[in-house]
Amino acid sequence: MAVGLSGDLSMTPVAGARVASAALGGRREARDDLALIELSPGSRCAAAFTRNRFCAAPVAVSRRHLEASSPRYLLINAGNANAGTGERGLRDALRSCEIVARAAGVPVTSVLPFSTGVIGEHLELERFERAIPLALESLRPDRWEHAARAIMTTDTVAKGVSREFAVGDTKCRVNAIAKGSGMIRPDMATMLAFAVTDAAVDPGPLSACLQAAVGESFNCITVDGDTSTNDACVLAATGASGAGAIEDTGEEAYGALREAVRDALQWLAQAIVRDAEGATKFIRIDVEEGESEALCRRVAYAVAESPLVKTAMFASDPNWGRILAAVGRSLPAHADIERVRVWLDDVCIVEQGGRAPAYREEDGQRVMDREELCVRIRLGGGAHRARVWTSDLSHEYVRINAEYRT
Amino acid sequence: MAVGLSGDLSMTPVAGARVASAALGGRREARDDLALIELSPGSRCAAAFTRNRFCAAPVAVSRRHLEASSPRYLLINAGNANAGTGERGLRDALRSCEIVARAAGVPVTSVLPFSTGVIGEHLELERFERAIPLALESLRPDRWEHAARAIMTTDTVAKGVSREFAVGDTKCRVNAIAKGSGMIRPDMATMLAFAVTDAAVDPGPLSACLQAAVGESFNCITVDGDTSTNDACVLAATGASGAGAIEDTGEEAYGALREAVRDALQWLAQAIVRDAEGATKFIRIDVEEGESEALCRRVAYAVAESPLVKTAMFASDPNWGRILAAVGRSLPAHADIERVRVWLDDVCIVEQGGRAPAYREEDGQRVMDREELCVRIRLGGGAHRARVWTSDLSHEYVRINAEYRT
Repeated sequence: MAVGLSGDLSMTPVAGARVASAALGGRREARDDLALIELSPGSRCAAAFTRNRFCAAPVAVSRRHLEASSPRYLLINAGNANAGTGERGLRDALRSCEIVARAAGVPVTSVLPFSTGVIGEHLELERFERAIPLALESLRPDRWEHAARAIMTTDTVAKGVSREFAVGDTKCRVNAIAKGSGMIRPDMATMLAFAVTDAAVDPGPLSACLQAAVGESFNCITVDGDTSTNDACVLAATGASGAGAIEDTGEEAYGALREAVRDALQWLAQAIVRDAEGATKFIRIDVEEGESEALCRRVAYAVAESPLVKTAMFASDPNWGRILAAVGRSLPAHADIERVRVWLDDVCIVEQGGRAPAYREEDGQRVMDREELCVRIRLGGGAHRARVWTSDLSHEYVRINAEYRT
Repeated sequence: MAVGLSGDLSMTPVAGARVASAALGGRREARDDLALIELSPGSRCAAAFTRNRFCAAPVAVSRRHLEASSPRYLLINAGNANAGTGERGLRDALRSCEIVARAAGVPVTSVLPFSTGVIGEHLELERFERAIPLALESLRPDRWEHAARAIMTTDTVAKGVSREFAVGDTKCRVNAIAKGSGMIRPDMATMLAFAVTDAAVDPGPLSACLQAAVGESFNCITVDGDTSTNDACVLAATGASGAGAIEDTGEEAYGALREAVRDALQWLAQAIVRDAEGATKFIRIDVEEGESEALCRRVAYAVAESPLVKTAMFASDPNWGRILAAVGRSLPAHADIERVRVWLDDVCIVEQGGRAPAYREEDGQRVMDREELCVRIRLGGGAHRARVWTSDLSHEYVRINAEYRT
């Protein structure tokens, strides 16, 4: 299903991190749905969380634990979001951390919990009691793909990526995995993403690196416009590579880290859109020449989230009028429509407020028949720009979301 | 298809107005797709138009003509929106008015053009040349239902309503017809709606009456969040009832007019949602106890337009977590989640940040199995409220919009 994704991950270990997966059990299909990431002592951690006001219990607990100490374990379960579960949800999330803490001999605040799945159900903690010891026993440096698969919900392929970069003479790595397919309109970070590097990075630059990368990756995608209650993205630095602290190594190494993390998260963000629920297309929306970045983002999201644009994309129908209508409703009153131009890849479809004179339907059709395409919108009113990746709206999207709980 | 609508209209004539329909021809199925409404000399007219910046050519021409003189003819064609058609579109819209003006012997500015249908195609004026004389010949006081049918595009039922009210001792009438089914998130007025009363009303109060009615009808509905390029709503007053001018008859008569117009437009707005593309449900979203009406509207639209809420509605799945997620993403940072409560009809599903303790899935299921239901959201943070009507998102919606142009 996923557009241009094979699902074959070839991830290499990253020093200072071990990974495991296990089955909580109780699912219709037998599969692992719990992942555990262990970070070596002294690891640093930065995180970005959803801005949804109904944030899930594990998000609240992870926030609290991050303030209290440095994480040693990331505990992730798929299938149950532990969101909308009130006080009991908070107690359950804390309890799941205690199970890890007790078995591993670490303080409870050094365990961060993450959940994804159905909203409004309570966790079955006895399943965590059984699965967590098994996960702890099976921790290995090379089980990233197991973890990437274990955190999937409606994802059809696992999503993970390894990147290398240099700190001085030392080769460092960043590994990142993510899950997400629906309820995707991140406002901070998408559903769940976990990145670990073996570079040594202090909390300040680590957090800045994460925020910048999230801004150019997860915060540039939308599937259905629905921001999740559980969005979380973590970047941990184990420092186990043997390279010196990034802060002491100069701008170049920090730049290399930032680029590697951004590349990894951008790859994952795009993978989420490629594997969006029911997706048959991977679409980039580029909005340029806007009076502000905010306006460019508004226009890009209006086009990316228009059900009419998305169904036309599904039908491979060069129905550019729907794009124009979406642009028109997102522009301010003073915008000069005459200056707006729109392209499908290299085909100019709109200029001077209407269909481009040279446009021929077969040229638009040629682009729309592609699995991957770009809608480029030039507003002709400034020098700002924004880029958003999105998918189409298919029968399969409705089927998946009408049947998800049944 | 339409939820709770039979499609049988029983409209009575309104003094001072004659109506006709005709076939432009060239459609796959033989049906009338041109409507003409004739208003007696001296009629007053108020109108509300789309705020989409890419407004269609007929919208621009209608605005201009309304400023120049009092309308005698409303000319409506379905199938071609004459939007995104640039300078030629403006000339074509004007030309269609000239055909009416010449044949009827009135100034061109007393003809208002309206179009609905595919965006980006040019009008075929020779078809207007042939059809308009036929329409003029067949003008009758009792052909409102013909007109209501002629302006349909993806609508499955015609939409029209008659209401009576008293001005002093005189019985007055208001007739209104509308079309609309997709690209519905009016920001002023929906696709196309035309109302005519035989009361005598000056332009000022007529306009105030229209704006108020639109605010409580077309501006409270959404199907897919896409604001059309062609939205227009007209209220004409012929004064042919024989009743005195509303201004001279006192507050009571004006109140009766306002109520009748609001009722008529509200009925039409709801009919548009009931007949929304692929709709199987008719859903009212009531948001109460908000700190402002704007916030209540934002929350209501976030829920009403969430693809995940809409697909759950289609599946009759009491997946209240999706409602909660949509509320959560639309609330400001200072909102107190603990005070938010949500009901499905009379069943309380959310309180204190999570599932209501007394909630049982079978109670939610019982409500979700209904064709018509209400989602009531109390924010617990003020005294403002908002109401929005919407539909679900079905397989049929995707089919209709993937196949519309083919």
